[in-house]
Amino acid sequence: MRVAVIGLGAMGMGAALNLLRAPGLETAGCDPRGAARSEFAAAGGTAVTRAADLPAGTEAALILVVDAKQVEAAVFGPDGCAPRLAPGAVLIVSATMAPEEARGLATEAARRGLLYLDAPVSGGVAGSRAGALTVMAAGSGAAFARAKPVLDATAKRVWNLGAEPGLGMTMKVVHQLLAGVHIAAAAEAMALGIKAGIEARTLYDIVITAAGNSWMFENRMPHVLDADETPRSAVDIFVKDLGLVGELARSVAFPAPLATQAHQLFIAARAMGHGGVDDAFVIRAYQALSGIRLPGEEG
Amino acid sequence: MRVAVIGLGAMGMGAALNLLRAPGLETAGCDPRGAARSEFAAAGGTAVTRAADLPAGTEAALILVVDAKQVEAAVFGPDGCAPRLAPGAVLIVSATMAPEEARGLATEAARRGLLYLDAPVSGGVAGSRAGALTVMAAGSGAAFARAKPVLDATAKRVWNLGAEPGLGMTMKVVHQLLAGVHIAAAAEAMALGIKAGIEARTLYDIVITAAGNSWMFENRMPHVLDADETPRSAVDIFVKDLGLVGELARSVAFPAPLATQAHQLFIAARAMGHGGVDDAFVIRAYQALSGIRLPGEEG
Repeated sequence: MRVAVIGLGAMGMGAALNLLRAPGLETAGCDPRGAARSEFAAAGGTAVTRAADLPAGTEAALILVVDAKQVEAAVFGPDGCAPRLAPGAVLIVSATMAPEEARGLATEAARRGLLYLDAPVSGGVAGSRAGALTVMAAGSGAAFARAKPVLDATAKRVWNLGAEPGLGMTMKVVHQLLAGVHIAAAAEAMALGIKAGIEARTLYDIVITAAGNSWMFENRMPHVLDADETPRSAVDIFVKDLGLVGELARSVAFPAPLATQAHQLFIAARAMGHGGVDDAFVIRAYQALSGIRLPGEEG
Repeated sequence: MRVAVIGLGAMGMGAALNLLRAPGLETAGCDPRGAARSEFAAAGGTAVTRAADLPAGTEAALILVVDAKQVEAAVFGPDGCAPRLAPGAVLIVSATMAPEEARGLATEAARRGLLYLDAPVSGGVAGSRAGALTVMAAGSGAAFARAKPVLDATAKRVWNLGAEPGLGMTMKVVHQLLAGVHIAAAAEAMALGIKAGIEARTLYDIVITAAGNSWMFENRMPHVLDADETPRSAVDIFVKDLGLVGELARSVAFPAPLATQAHQLFIAARAMGHGGVDDAFVIRAYQALSGIRLPGEEG
């Protein structure tokens, strides 16, 4: 089976390398960045710059780009892969986007005789490298069946949220509400503790053994303790994803006060020039409002 | 060593039963409710109605009542235990209160020649029954030393936050910020998912295996899925505790937008008549705002 990964970023590269190792698959990768193509070619894959140059007869394309606009360009645009796909090929679309954008892309795919799996992922770069992504998928039985060899090689768990494309993204957006609020709440608690005289590392050690813990608190706050701004995932990602939460909530007439408030804090961190650093540094917004010193900062 | 537990509620009873089993301790318990006294007496403990009736010469009193006002009455009031305590006895005060209230009680204790351990706990009823509480403590070395036999029998971990009473409560209040925001965020995500067409149990199953998980999401949302309002901890507790977060934040000049927003949601649930039910049912506020049906509710 001829398969392709479009977007060899941190997530896409992990998935592509796992596909390369899977028996019975011929895997091509596509990325405009030369370094990504070199890495994938060195591992034995076919690497191309434009999706329009993917091998003819590709039967499944796993798309791990940034947003709906990039998906549209990579599939249906002038440099897109649509003409290279086999009849009845499946698009497995994992870029996070609004559910209605997923429905629009699925409609266009159907018009061209292509299957569409709405398939956002969770699990991060580590999960991607390990072939252990969680996929929140929605689509027809035929789309699931056609995508199976690709999902088998890249995911540890595939959830079926229903036949209607958009439900996968809906679940992903709801998930991002929790993720974003938890990071901002972690920053709020850490900053308040510092302001009120609690030693930051002790605060961390207590919370992670107690009922106030969250996956994000435990995973992100060490970046603050270590004064390490290297972006595993950047502030700007949650400026975008909590924006999607707001759009989804409005579209179904649902008020989301905590997500909205958390969004404002990520926007503030971005406004202060921290959009590109690790998302734990949404704590810079609290620092600006309260004058605290973070770990590693001189008195 | 003669010890006492004041307040034989769910938390206090667990601690008292563990003290009863500990070698070398003679344990008395105090509670105005006859049922609690009967349970404790049946287990072999000495049970009294008023703290003023505790055995003379009590050397350590573990106080697990509701708030600072109850602590003050139970120790220093006309029916309080102060006259029954041995010189240099230690008060181990675990009721959640504002840090400045803890400092006030510690000052009064010192005036009377008593030691004071500011010692809020986490771990819930299960932790209390298992003798596995987490204690966030602050006080003098003498207070820690005198309290040690009681802590050894009831806690799995005792954190020393410093010599100054109040730091224990500060840590507990910061912890409650996370706990309260996480419950409200869990409700917000669950309600948005339901409104947007995601099956509630699937949403739960996905989140608890993904990066959006929190201890509270995983622990509390089954109550919503099972339509079980039995209060393990009630909405009113977070009306109180997020109020303490607001007071602490104001007192150190720190804005806490997420905690403040979460507080409003618990207040709304209370306003709707749900103050006494399980805190997961803060989701009633979202239900009122969005018109969703919760699991178990007829169409």
